[in-house]
Amino acid sequence: MPPTCASLPGVHPSPETPIPQQASAPFEDFGITRIEALSDGVFAIVLTLLVLELKVPHLNDPHSVAELGRALLSIVPKLISWVISFLTVMVIWVNHHRSFKNLCAVDIRLLWHNAHLLLWISILPFPTALMGDYHHNPLGVSLYGLCMACTALAFALLRSHVLAHWHLAKDHMDREMYRKGLRISILMGPVAYTVGAILAWVYEPAAFILYSLIVVYFVVPSGRVKRV
Amino acid sequence: MPPTCASLPGVHPSPETPIPQQASAPFEDFGITRIEALSDGVFAIVLTLLVLELKVPHLNDPHSVAELGRALLSIVPKLISWVISFLTVMVIWVNHHRSFKNLCAVDIRLLWHNAHLLLWISILPFPTALMGDYHHNPLGVSLYGLCMACTALAFALLRSHVLAHWHLAKDHMDREMYRKGLRISILMGPVAYTVGAILAWVYEPAAFILYSLIVVYFVVPSGRVKRV
Amino acid sequence: MPPTCASLPGVHPSPETPIPQQASAPFEDFGITRIEALSDGVFAIVLTLLVLELKVPHLNDPHSVAELGRALLSIVPKLISWVISFLTVMVIWVNHHRSFKNLCAVDIRLLWHNAHLLLWISILPFPTALMGDYHHNPLGVSLYGLCMACTALAFALLRSHVLAHWHLAKDHMDREMYRKGLRISILMGPVAYTVGAILAWVYEPAAFILYSLIVVYFVVPSGRVKRV
Amino acid sequence: MPPTCASLPGVHPSPETPIPQQASAPFEDFGITRIEALSDGVFAIVLTLLVLELKVPHLNDPHSVAELGRALLSIVPKLISWVISFLTVMVIWVNHHRSFKNLCAVDIRLLWHNAHLLLWISILPFPTALMGDYHHNPLGVSLYGLCMACTALAFALLRSHVLAHWHLAKDHMDREMYRKGLRISILMGPVAYTVGAILAWVYEPAAFILYSLIVVYFVVPSGRVKRV
Repeated sequence: MPPTCASLPGVHPSPETPIPQQASAPFEDFGITRIEALSDGVFAIVLTLLVLELKVPHLNDPHSVAELGRALLSIVPKLISWVISFLTVMVIWVNHHRSFKNLCAVDIRLLWHNAHLLLWISILPFPTALMGDYHHNPLGVSLYGLCMACTALAFALLRSHVLAHWHLAKDHMDREMYRKGLRISILMGPVAYTVGAILAWVYEPAAFILYSLIVVYFVVPSGRVKRV
Repeated sequence: MPPTCASLPGVHPSPETPIPQQASAPFEDFGITRIEALSDGVFAIVLTLLVLELKVPHLNDPHSVAELGRALLSIVPKLISWVISFLTVMVIWVNHHRSFKNLCAVDIRLLWHNAHLLLWISILPFPTALMGDYHHNPLGVSLYGLCMACTALAFALLRSHVLAHWHLAKDHMDREMYRKGLRISILMGPVAYTVGAILAWVYEPAAFILYSLIVVYFVVPSGRVKRV
Repeated sequence: MPPTCASLPGVHPSPETPIPQQASAPFEDFGITRIEALSDGVFAIVLTLLVLELKVPHLNDPHSVAELGRALLSIVPKLISWVISFLTVMVIWVNHHRSFKNLCAVDIRLLWHNAHLLLWISILPFPTALMGDYHHNPLGVSLYGLCMACTALAFALLRSHVLAHWHLAKDHMDREMYRKGLRISILMGPVAYTVGAILAWVYEPAAFILYSLIVVYFVVPSGRVKRV
Repeated sequence: MPPTCASLPGVHPSPETPIPQQASAPFEDFGITRIEALSDGVFAIVLTLLVLELKVPHLNDPHSVAELGRALLSIVPKLISWVISFLTVMVIWVNHHRSFKNLCAVDIRLLWHNAHLLLWISILPFPTALMGDYHHNPLGVSLYGLCMACTALAFALLRSHVLAHWHLAKDHMDREMYRKGLRISILMGPVAYTVGAILAWVYEPAAFILYSLIVVYFVVPSGRVKRV
């Protein structure tokens, strides 16, 4: 059961709220349990589907260690691509978890912001496989960055909605802190990935390295900035 | 844990209730937690399986941007078909969520109405792929509409069951409002999709557009009618 | 959080309990939430994977209604096989749900009885596909019945464990009723499916019909016998 | 909702705690519900995906019992490989369940230790399929053992983190017991699997048998050592 804000019973929408509060459409709280359950399902499946790209190689001599060794070495680029994607999806999940545990209510528009985010997450196995197969093709490497930028943008829109409808956030949350964290995450998400997508047209390995650095930035706890 | 209606302890089945209340088969509440968990699992998998239809294209020259560009352009119809299906399944999930959070108990027949709904939802990837591949074949486009009409009908049957066994609904629910919402959703669901399935035999793009409009209708909050 | 039996604090294992209650291995309650979550995940995936067997047919003329119609008609046996399997898995889920909501604690052996059940459930897509492809081959049709008999047997073993360790059941449960229900479910599960598996060697459609009748028996509420 | 330790409000990190407790980065509890939900999702999918390796054989004569029988016999090695993997993943799940039900809080580093564990679990279908196809190739059989050793190591690291940050454990937990259990599980996990991976280069069936024995050790309740 989602926690209820002390402030919720006398719902006080912030001035920015664009939905008119009519008698026939009062504030409707959708609860957090099921939105988390659906999202966790999609995250778990995407994390696991990514590995389906790794196919068991066909050997002419099933007993040959050398042949199997060569076959496994040839899928190392796919393996690296898989690890980067796995960690990226996990970073998004950690942030999703952090965002939702600080909410006290969910309105219909947040539900759709979340759906928008899940749409980009569930398409990720496609650009990941594309980059794994065509890591020397600027278009393939660039497309991965673009999809990631869109995913990060969808997340930023979800957070902006919370910022603009602050009665959805729990009472202990600091709005200024949240605004600052959102600004930093836009810089490290949509902006950094777009830079990577452009870099891919100059030199593909540079984009590859930038994509990895973004993940490392989010995985290693900084201790200085409290992320939202 | 599901909330318990104030009225539940002294279960008062409505006059329509067809199941005889015998001593050996009293009212058995199945709870809402697990029916939601199973449904969320099926929804999450269907949302994610839909994307498996997007295959990484095979290129003769892996470095050619032009060839990869052409290959990606050719899967744009599949991509549109995927987005429409993704949003449609999400609309059904939002309505499923809304319906169940207003219940206070689940009887064995509601369990099977839900199973009937999940049956249609889990088959959706098939007509979606069919329409993506054969968008100029009236039978393919029509079948998508028919499956959607059946899905919407299964949902309407589930809601009718709640209406006929009103002790399953939470106390704050307004029965007249619910009946009205159900009538509108039948019009916008089974009826509209059947019209689309017929339109497909006249002019396929018209059906395509109608399918999209139905989704848009459900995604954009109307603010006038409170949906159930 | 799992409900706690009034009787649990002073755990009183029934005389049949085979695990010696040593100081180093006291009764350890595993809780019901996660065992249900894992099971619901497996059920949801099996329900959805079953449909992956339905492949979009390849047409020589993508615009031909007649050709698509013939192609779709040819997969009708697969479709029937899918519906029977879907309903069967759903029946097992409903019974699983019913069994676990009447438990107040889960010991390590129940965990492994459940694992045994999930093993048979997760293999079901294989015999289902086999019967869909080879519905005129007695071995294929027979194997489906054998797998189903094993699944039902695994379920009966799980229930027998509860019967033998009655402190796991909630206080309101009637042990005599439970024993009776278990006996009937063994008759309608392992025994009936084994009869079907044998019938397949005489006349395949007879087995097919028996498999369907078993599902119908469990879906249609009898109102006379309270199933456990 | 995760249980809260009596000791948590006045968080007292153990002396080993390496994260400096700054004003801007206080202890942040991530809760146990969602980390369990994501993990259960990944476990359920891996358990079910393993079976996808079993393909329906193609028969020249669909009615021939003899041909279908031979085809099914030829996939028996795959079937055994599947059963061993299924049971192994289930053993890990049981231990995961046991570990988390004894926690009262989850910090950001435990979240990433769990992510590391899930990474190895979600790759398991690949070495399982590899061993199923190349059970006479020492590299294939050895790689399975190495992946399992890494999975077990990831789990041991997760438990070591709890040991070093004992305020995450519930009050009733015995630290000395936990330390002892961890030491035994390192011996039976990473060490035993590494031995198996080395054995594979001497005689493949010996590795196969050792892998099976490890599973049997964990499935059969010993009653002597309380595992953590």
